[in-house]
Amino acid sequence: MSITTPPGFAAAGWAAGIKSSGALDLALLCTDDGRPVPTAATFTLNKAAAAPVQVSRSHLATSAGRMVGVVVSSGNANAATGARGRNDAERMTTLVADGLGVDPAALLVCSTGLIGIPLPMEVIEPGLVHLVAARGSGPEAGEAAAQGILTTDSGRKEVLVERDGFVVAGMAKGAGMLAPNMATMLAFLTTDADVSPGALQESLQVAVDASFNSMSIDGCTSTNDTVVVMASGRSGPVDVGVLTEALVEACQGLARQMAADAEGAERIFQVRVTGAAGDGEAHRAARKVADSLLVKCSINGADPYWGRVASELGSAGVEFDMDRLVISYGGIDVCRGGVAADFDATGVAKHFSSPLVDIHCQLGLGAGSGVVMGVELGYGYIDENRTTS
Amino acid sequence: MSITTPPGFAAAGWAAGIKSSGALDLALLCTDDGRPVPTAATFTLNKAAAAPVQVSRSHLATSAGRMVGVVVSSGNANAATGARGRNDAERMTTLVADGLGVDPAALLVCSTGLIGIPLPMEVIEPGLVHLVAARGSGPEAGEAAAQGILTTDSGRKEVLVERDGFVVAGMAKGAGMLAPNMATMLAFLTTDADVSPGALQESLQVAVDASFNSMSIDGCTSTNDTVVVMASGRSGPVDVGVLTEALVEACQGLARQMAADAEGAERIFQVRVTGAAGDGEAHRAARKVADSLLVKCSINGADPYWGRVASELGSAGVEFDMDRLVISYGGIDVCRGGVAADFDATGVAKHFSSPLVDIHCQLGLGAGSGVVMGVELGYGYIDENRTTS
Repeated sequence: MSITTPPGFAAAGWAAGIKSSGALDLALLCTDDGRPVPTAATFTLNKAAAAPVQVSRSHLATSAGRMVGVVVSSGNANAATGARGRNDAERMTTLVADGLGVDPAALLVCSTGLIGIPLPMEVIEPGLVHLVAARGSGPEAGEAAAQGILTTDSGRKEVLVERDGFVVAGMAKGAGMLAPNMATMLAFLTTDADVSPGALQESLQVAVDASFNSMSIDGCTSTNDTVVVMASGRSGPVDVGVLTEALVEACQGLARQMAADAEGAERIFQVRVTGAAGDGEAHRAARKVADSLLVKCSINGADPYWGRVASELGSAGVEFDMDRLVISYGGIDVCRGGVAADFDATGVAKHFSSPLVDIHCQLGLGAGSGVVMGVELGYGYIDENRTTS
Repeated sequence: MSITTPPGFAAAGWAAGIKSSGALDLALLCTDDGRPVPTAATFTLNKAAAAPVQVSRSHLATSAGRMVGVVVSSGNANAATGARGRNDAERMTTLVADGLGVDPAALLVCSTGLIGIPLPMEVIEPGLVHLVAARGSGPEAGEAAAQGILTTDSGRKEVLVERDGFVVAGMAKGAGMLAPNMATMLAFLTTDADVSPGALQESLQVAVDASFNSMSIDGCTSTNDTVVVMASGRSGPVDVGVLTEALVEACQGLARQMAADAEGAERIFQVRVTGAAGDGEAHRAARKVADSLLVKCSINGADPYWGRVASELGSAGVEFDMDRLVISYGGIDVCRGGVAADFDATGVAKHFSSPLVDIHCQLGLGAGSGVVMGVELGYGYIDENRTTS
């Protein structure tokens, strides 16, 4: 499986020399015939959005959601690079467009890596010529693209979801879990479903909210986050609801791979909130707990310190009644009615060895529920993030 | 100097046995004649507020801001303890009131320590009898009280501010900087100024906003945070503006002592934001940067990674224009117009050895300014917080 599994797409990866390691650092995803297809994207909401995000937003609007492809560079984020950065991002789309014989405005561009350093265009420009020439529709081309978007990731992140009549494929970059100096999350999806740009955008937003937007790394919002989906239409019309479900499944699969790739982190956890006044409040409360440094530290220490969970819920800005609160770790109640419950300490200790630590908070107020995934805070995070060198 | 320096107050400390170390764990602050005086307080906004906070709020309202004193226990927060906890907190005020021969509703109560464990009333009850009997107006009594409120603090935190005609004294507890499992911040202030309860409450709110509310430990809101000020009136009427300034100075002095007492942390920093659209936006932006795990980590690593500062400003929810941004460390510009500036790396490295690292962000939009203090994130934080044992 690869990003080129759905009919209608080509891909490529190339080592231009942005990374001193010599690893692949350019990637291309495009239609195999150079024709634009319905494309949707979500971008970071950071007002310090990087140059490629600014350029991609503009191109997507200009082309009314019908794009030929996306070019990606890794190792340098082209963020906080001012007018020069915007020129460089535009130049990347122009060079690829020349190679493909298409309009530059039909191309998106993404970059990931360190902030504040201008792109090394002297190696990128010749690299892009090779990249376009290397494109193909076979699995090895898709694998090269999936490799070319990585930074500190330990390996490729790919997904394939098959439905009756169409498929969704995806690739992502995000070792950001514990290396958020390069925390950019990039994901690219392809499908052979036939769908309008507007419907595709709505489906993508649902999928992103249910996956990448439900993870807690460190509460920081990257300057470069981008998710793109392209639909070749080769399989014919589909039920939009079924397509949305497939996109949700694909994005959740990629998000899980990111969490599992948390370098140096041994423990991943999820905070499930139920019984909230509404789904929005449940999600906000779950995020407050998952974002908490103190909770993240106690996960690192395998300590079911539910008092801190209760404290975060109480300051999450949602409806809350301490006397109704039940908190459990791995299904074992440690707090009932807002006070300590006698619990099976051996069972909880054992649960901390499971692949995903589960903290369930029952608010006892309504029918709202939400889940957010989190990663422990330990020495690994400090080691990865204290310096850029 | 001590909390009993302003005329009209008595204090005491006692070791009841809440702490297994045998250290002082009860404290009393009260008027020296048992008569109520104007008293103001601010409490945590956490909806999981601990039992003593609930009881104190109620007593302060019942007594219309005229109180006789406050009793404090340390080593156990009496938080997440339900109805039993509320009964225990009420019982603490009743026992002290009996000893002083006053109405229990004229007493406030505070506790600090671990969450979720009922108070050991079997040692607290006899301890309170000794505590009341031990009260005195000398400096040693004030010192015992300042000692009795501590948890993981390395030493007493006291302050004295003298003005023409009156004084303000204070004591605080807050090793919370790096041990926020016990992160409660408690501060108690006394003054001999003559002021109404209403004016005192307004002055205190200004002082708290300019001090304790302008610090970034880990973004967590404790269940027990409380600041109390009592005014004996012995010095006669004062200008409320002058009193407010004195309270600001006293609270800032205590806040600095808390920051300096960050166990295991070697670096403290401040984020100054100027040129924001307004003071509120400046403060919000400064807090976003100071709260950032990535910025805290880079302070630990002595790395002037301004790109992350820019990214946090961009996602702070305030008016922001990357092209106008200037960021400096210790007065040395590292970013100008949103892009990297050539800078004196030796000078910046030297600045990281100074007692307070200064990050100045000029937004170039308006006249709003704000400052928030922060503490680095390093191994020390993890060690203190991964388990409660």
